[in-house]
Amino acid sequence: MGGDDAPDVVIDGAADAAGDGLSLCLVGPEDRLRSRGLPVVHASDHISIDEAAVAGVRRSRDTSIRVGLREVRAGRAGAFVSCGNTGAIVVASMLELGLNDGVRRPPIATLLPRADGRHLVLLDTGAHVDARAQLLADFARLGFAYAQELGISDPRVGLLANGAEVTKGTPRLRAAVEILDQADLPHVGFIEPHAALRGACDVLVTDGFVGNVLLKAGEGTVHMLGRLIEREIRRDPIAKLGAWLLRAAVRRLRRQVEWEARGGGVLLGCRGTVIVGHGRATRESVRQAIHLANRTVCARVAA
Amino acid sequence: MGGDDAPDVVIDGAADAAGDGLSLCLVGPEDRLRSRGLPVVHASDHISIDEAAVAGVRRSRDTSIRVGLREVRAGRAGAFVSCGNTGAIVVASMLELGLNDGVRRPPIATLLPRADGRHLVLLDTGAHVDARAQLLADFARLGFAYAQELGISDPRVGLLANGAEVTKGTPRLRAAVEILDQADLPHVGFIEPHAALRGACDVLVTDGFVGNVLLKAGEGTVHMLGRLIEREIRRDPIAKLGAWLLRAAVRRLRRQVEWEARGGGVLLGCRGTVIVGHGRATRESVRQAIHLANRTVCARVAA
Repeated sequence: MGGDDAPDVVIDGAADAAGDGLSLCLVGPEDRLRSRGLPVVHASDHISIDEAAVAGVRRSRDTSIRVGLREVRAGRAGAFVSCGNTGAIVVASMLELGLNDGVRRPPIATLLPRADGRHLVLLDTGAHVDARAQLLADFARLGFAYAQELGISDPRVGLLANGAEVTKGTPRLRAAVEILDQADLPHVGFIEPHAALRGACDVLVTDGFVGNVLLKAGEGTVHMLGRLIEREIRRDPIAKLGAWLLRAAVRRLRRQVEWEARGGGVLLGCRGTVIVGHGRATRESVRQAIHLANRTVCARVAA
Repeated sequence: MGGDDAPDVVIDGAADAAGDGLSLCLVGPEDRLRSRGLPVVHASDHISIDEAAVAGVRRSRDTSIRVGLREVRAGRAGAFVSCGNTGAIVVASMLELGLNDGVRRPPIATLLPRADGRHLVLLDTGAHVDARAQLLADFARLGFAYAQELGISDPRVGLLANGAEVTKGTPRLRAAVEILDQADLPHVGFIEPHAALRGACDVLVTDGFVGNVLLKAGEGTVHMLGRLIEREIRRDPIAKLGAWLLRAAVRRLRRQVEWEARGGGVLLGCRGTVIVGHGRATRESVRQAIHLANRTVCARVAA
C-alpha cells in the first residue's frame, strides 16, 4: 500500500518480479490486491505517507507494514519490501523484527554508482535525520559489514565531510572519528562527495538528512543532465544522428545510474531483511526493489 | 596565492581573463607574480589552505587575502577573487569590508544549472557549516535579493529538506520557516534537491555543510556519468561514431554544467564584491571566477 501511486504500481511491479521468477506475496486489503493473481496476505489498515512514524505504527497492529514484517518474523517471507512511509518502516521494523545485538538504530544503506564502475554504499539515506557521533560510528560499523556481505573485501569506510582536512567537518563528525579510532574500526577519515564518487571509499557514512539529500541530489543531477543534453540534441541535426547511434550505450548507462534501476535501500541491523523502496515508486522501481530484496537475502544466507 | 596549484594556475587564468578584456591585478609576493606582465599589488604573506580561519586572518595584516580585500575597500578594485582558504576569505571579508546592515554572517551563493535551462541559486555553499534557524532565514533573505540582482523577478525561495511535507526536515528548518512566516518573507517551504534541480524554486537555502556537500555531489555525479558513458562508448564502435557526431553538443553541455565553467560562488552581504573560487582551481576555473566577479559587479551597479 506504499508509494505515490499505490497499490496499482506496486502490484504491476510485483507481477513483473514474479514474472522474473521471484516468489512473493502482496500485503494489504485483500479486495484491492487480487487483480493480478498474486498471493495476498490480508492487512486491513495502512499507514499513510504523511502520518507521524511512531503514532502511525502504534495506532494499529493491522497496518500493511506491520503485517508484512510479521511474515518475515514468522519465517514465511525472506524479506519485506515497502515504498511507504520511511519513518514508519523503520519504527515498525525495530518493533516487529527487533535489532541485532549492539545496534542502537537501523540505518538505510543505498548503493550509488561510482566513476570507476563499482559501487559506493551510502548510509544513512533517510532513517535518522539527526544522528549523533556514536550513531555515525555505529553506521560505519554496519556499513563495513554490509559491504563485506556484498563481496567487497577490506571495505574502505569514509565519513562524509565538506573537506578532507581534519579541521573540516562538524564537532559531531570529529567525535565520530575519535570513537572509530578508539574502537579500532578501520576508516579513511573525512571524504568529500566527489572523491567518494570517484572511488576514494567503499562506504560513505552520514546522517539520514544529509544522506537523503545527497541521494536525491544525485538523482536530480542525472535527470538535469539528461534534459540539458536533449535540448542540445534537438537544435542540432548532426547531434540527433549521433544520439541515435548512441542509444544502446545510453540504455546501458541508464541501467547503472537511474534511481528506478536501484529500487531502494536496505535497512541494516534488523533481525530480518527490509527493503525501503523509493517513495516515487514506479512499476520498474518496485520490480527492482524486489530484486534487491532477493539479492540481499541470498548474500546474507551465503555470508 | 590560493588554490591547489597556486600561484601558477591563478596567474594563467588571470592572464586569460585579461586577454578577454577584463582589467585586473594580482595580489601576492611581487617576485613570484611578475611572470605574465599583469599588474601586481604586493602582499608579503599568505594564509595556507589548512590554517584555521580566524587565526590565519589575525596572524598578519599582510596576507594576500587581506591586502586584496583592502584594494576593494579603498575603491581601487571592484571585486576580490580568491581560490584560497574559504574560512579565511569569509572572516577577512567581514573584518576588512564589513557587513551590510542587518547581516549577521555572509553566506556563499553558487549558481547551479537546472533541468529547465535556467539557474538555481544555492546558498550557503561553505561559509558557515553550522547555521541555526535565524541564520537560515537570513540566508533566505540574502538569496532572494541576489536572485533579484540576477534579473529573476519574484524569486521562489525554498528551504532544502529531505521531504516536502511539513513533518520532514529538522527542528532547525521548521524554526526557520516560522521566522520567514513571521517576517513575511515569501518562500515555498521545504524543497527536495531533485525538485529544486527540476525548477521548483529559484533559491535553495541550507547550511554551509549541506550546501557544500550538495555542490560537490553534483560535481561528482557529472564526472561519474561522463566516465561511465565513456566506458560504454569504448566497447561499442557504433556508439563511438555517435559520440563523435555529438561532440559539439557535449561541448555546449559542458559549458553549462561543469564546475570549471562556474568558477566559484559569490560571498553575499559584505560591503564589497567577493568571489570564492573553487579550491581545486584550474586555469579555466580561475578565468571563469574572474568573469563571475565582473558580472556580479555589473549587476550590482545596475541594480
